[in-house]
Amino acid sequence: MAESWVNSAESVGRDLHLELSGGGSRRAALIRALRAAVQDGRLAPGTRLPPYRSLAADLGVARNTVADAYAELVAEGWLTARQGSGTRVALGVSPVRAEPGARGRTAPPPRVRVPKRSPNVPAKPAHNLVQGQPDAGSFPRAAWLAAARRALTAAPNEAFGPGDPQGRIELRRALASYLARVRGTRTDPDRIVVCSGFAHALRLLFAGPGGGAGGGALSGPSPRSRLRSNRGDPVAVEAYGLGFHRSILDAARVRTLPLGLDEHGARVEELADVPGPVRAVLLTPAHQFPTGGPLHPARRGAVVDWARTHGGLILEDDYDGEFRYDREPVGAVQGLDPEHVVYVGSVSKSLSPAVRIGWMVLPEHLVGAVVAAKGEREAWVSVLDQLTLADLIDSGHYDRHVRRMRQRYRRRRDHLVTTLAEHAPHISVTGIAAGLHAVLRLPPGTEASAVKAAAWQGVALEGLSGYRHPEAATHAPDGLVVGYATPPEHGYAAAIEALCRVLPPAAEEEAERGPAGDG
Amino acid sequence: MAESWVNSAESVGRDLHLELSGGGSRRAALIRALRAAVQDGRLAPGTRLPPYRSLAADLGVARNTVADAYAELVAEGWLTARQGSGTRVALGVSPVRAEPGARGRTAPPPRVRVPKRSPNVPAKPAHNLVQGQPDAGSFPRAAWLAAARRALTAAPNEAFGPGDPQGRIELRRALASYLARVRGTRTDPDRIVVCSGFAHALRLLFAGPGGGAGGGALSGPSPRSRLRSNRGDPVAVEAYGLGFHRSILDAARVRTLPLGLDEHGARVEELADVPGPVRAVLLTPAHQFPTGGPLHPARRGAVVDWARTHGGLILEDDYDGEFRYDREPVGAVQGLDPEHVVYVGSVSKSLSPAVRIGWMVLPEHLVGAVVAAKGEREAWVSVLDQLTLADLIDSGHYDRHVRRMRQRYRRRRDHLVTTLAEHAPHISVTGIAAGLHAVLRLPPGTEASAVKAAAWQGVALEGLSGYRHPEAATHAPDGLVVGYATPPEHGYAAAIEALCRVLPPAAEEEAERGPAGDG
Repeated sequence: MAESWVNSAESVGRDLHLELSGGGSRRAALIRALRAAVQDGRLAPGTRLPPYRSLAADLGVARNTVADAYAELVAEGWLTARQGSGTRVALGVSPVRAEPGARGRTAPPPRVRVPKRSPNVPAKPAHNLVQGQPDAGSFPRAAWLAAARRALTAAPNEAFGPGDPQGRIELRRALASYLARVRGTRTDPDRIVVCSGFAHALRLLFAGPGGGAGGGALSGPSPRSRLRSNRGDPVAVEAYGLGFHRSILDAARVRTLPLGLDEHGARVEELADVPGPVRAVLLTPAHQFPTGGPLHPARRGAVVDWARTHGGLILEDDYDGEFRYDREPVGAVQGLDPEHVVYVGSVSKSLSPAVRIGWMVLPEHLVGAVVAAKGEREAWVSVLDQLTLADLIDSGHYDRHVRRMRQRYRRRRDHLVTTLAEHAPHISVTGIAAGLHAVLRLPPGTEASAVKAAAWQGVALEGLSGYRHPEAATHAPDGLVVGYATPPEHGYAAAIEALCRVLPPAAEEEAERGPAGDG
Repeated sequence: MAESWVNSAESVGRDLHLELSGGGSRRAALIRALRAAVQDGRLAPGTRLPPYRSLAADLGVARNTVADAYAELVAEGWLTARQGSGTRVALGVSPVRAEPGARGRTAPPPRVRVPKRSPNVPAKPAHNLVQGQPDAGSFPRAAWLAAARRALTAAPNEAFGPGDPQGRIELRRALASYLARVRGTRTDPDRIVVCSGFAHALRLLFAGPGGGAGGGALSGPSPRSRLRSNRGDPVAVEAYGLGFHRSILDAARVRTLPLGLDEHGARVEELADVPGPVRAVLLTPAHQFPTGGPLHPARRGAVVDWARTHGGLILEDDYDGEFRYDREPVGAVQGLDPEHVVYVGSVSKSLSPAVRIGWMVLPEHLVGAVVAAKGEREAWVSVLDQLTLADLIDSGHYDRHVRRMRQRYRRRRDHLVTTLAEHAPHISVTGIAAGLHAVLRLPPGTEASAVKAAAWQGVALEGLSGYRHPEAATHAPDGLVVGYATPPEHGYAAAIEALCRVLPPAAEEEAERGPAGDG
């Protein structure tokens, strides 16, 4: 019988006694022991678990055994594993059936709390409505393969040599023309740099070739630069946004300042109130992520004015700009002032996140620095995929795919709106008809319990509050972020039905009581 | 007529007067003016040029004009552009015909010096013998496309969703079996992490998701780890190696310690003499890069002993392990002790650097940390290419391609050896019959002039001394690094002929005198 008293320090809060008793494998015994420790409160929510190797050494079991046990409990939702913060006891867990043999009794589910950030649900829920991905089943395999055949057959031999870090000229040409036509950008191929996605773009600007502090295109003070600010200056972001992007800036030691958010989008006028220079402002003008409104035309003009007057830079994250369902999409802010906007897009929403291609449309004075930050040669983005995407765009098949997906997602959004109107008329869908997600506004105080109830019912989705910048003054109303592109086509109606079942009733107050904790 | 007195500071050594006179465009005038400044010594070799924007502002020309002028002069070899160190006057330049109109006279070529590091010749030389790339014309387009068709047709829908940062299981399975069969590694798919190449692997270990300091899998002190050393400890490297790899470690603030190098490879016994712990040792055991010997069997054993005894780690860079021409390749050191070796390979030499795929075979205790350093989702490596490569390997077409290239490169190496024996018998080819490059040993003191002569004759290649670690005690004999895989098949014989013409004669001493500098 192996035992362990896990040391406290920065990991678990106090010494922990794990007893690997009972039948079956050591893995099963360890899973039972950890589950029990969570259940009876010895491992509190949020507690960091010891590294595999330490626990393995303490228990005298193989590291694999511990890794497997953690993985199983992550899959079951008892634990969460997140980059940089290790494995922790889940803050909000979807209850699982306790293993009948666990300590000889049927354990109650652990006390649940609301996750502070998007849970990135590792276990496969019955219905996945987590935002962030397109319908994986709609990838245009045949069109992609045909484009690959044309592109690789036509490519010159040098395409298979070391690549230009700026990206293949074929793709940059295709993008310059496509983006001008579809998103109203003003650029030429020389001012486009190919990257692997928005996160890579952020790293190239602020963190060097891929992460960490220092080395990015905007990282040095440059007295002669048109950017008057420098390295120590903060970057303004929207009050609600992707925590992942803030993390990249944090890792590059760039301070972020949240701008307020209202029905007209980011309150860019607050830039004037910031004491000291602001290096750049990161915006999602076409479709604020995640709250769902467009940036008001007056504010589009105001932020460009700010950039011109203060030598600042606008980072335009056009993550889903091709998907607007009620009208033509509003053009990119980049078109208003190409010298003050870094426009960033990718195929992650329009095609697939499995194709690691994005693009930066840069002010002329930043091209050299961004290419330099990327490296001497193309070290990241597949040249074969670049050539294929160029052909897909030039041949019109990319447009065709986007049109097809636009229809599909519009139908899905309409279905969501109609179903809610019928079954939950007190819940409104906010934001414009666009993109791959919608925000459902909930009665005040019900978000936490709704997320909890959804998890119980096997519906994976996120609360709006998880996207809030920790220092933001803005508090959006309670809401659910519903990724309606995520489920497979055949499972969509069932997912929305399941969603309707877990929405709070019209006048419900929050019922934040879990079952009794200790058995 | 625009003029500029470029300020000194950290860029040019003293005020510089550039006069944009003469006919033609401003670009042409600026090119002439810069060339003249290099020719008459006002811009000394190594001098850093001002950023585009500053010079553009000073001269009152468009930044594009400056960028174009720099690019042209880089292409002509007068300037070099390198990430992180800006544009500089070349240390070793291949002289160009001075433009007849330049300052009204035919200018002499600038005084040349030997490049301290590989020049990465940006202009297209007549014959490219720079090491580092496979024959781009031999990329197996049809086999790749067929594999892509099979792979993308068979892939489950979830393959087009967000990817596992460890890499597709199909590829990891294919690699585990392929590497065991061909390179003698011992692993299973769970201990393989897919990356974009060796540089990415180094960053994941030492620098986090892609560069900069901190965040890598080996970056934290971990008292319980099997690695006894920690963040502040240096990494031992071979006395000769890729400066690019050292730069990545430098950027991650990892100190490198050069190990001596002799006819038996890296002198790993020197690890015992280092005061204080060494975190890891970076080796190229199958084929030392660039000097070309294998690591002696006794030293293979000794370095594994060191790793076990000191809790150190061996980083095995198996960059060309599939290409051995005189016998079966020696297996990977990883096979001796999978728990103390990080084995890294890629398709950059075997297939193409345009496919950005590499792999790390990791000790069990490092898998989690490396995956965590890579990020929550696959952000770098194309999943489509991963699936295609898995099929290419499983279907046997990858083996077939490697066999075909092995024959081709062996023929090329044989041709080089035979031709030298006939035309330059005083020059020997050193190292084993392996890989994509050979080192020609030169008479003492002739390396610099040979590199210079080659550049004059339009033959791009590198001297051996450029690969030396700046603090190394080892001084290899004078030599040329000849990348015999680089030229196209139809141009290979001519490239070797041209090479023979520029080799120093049997008893030649170094003639390090350029034409008079100032006109």
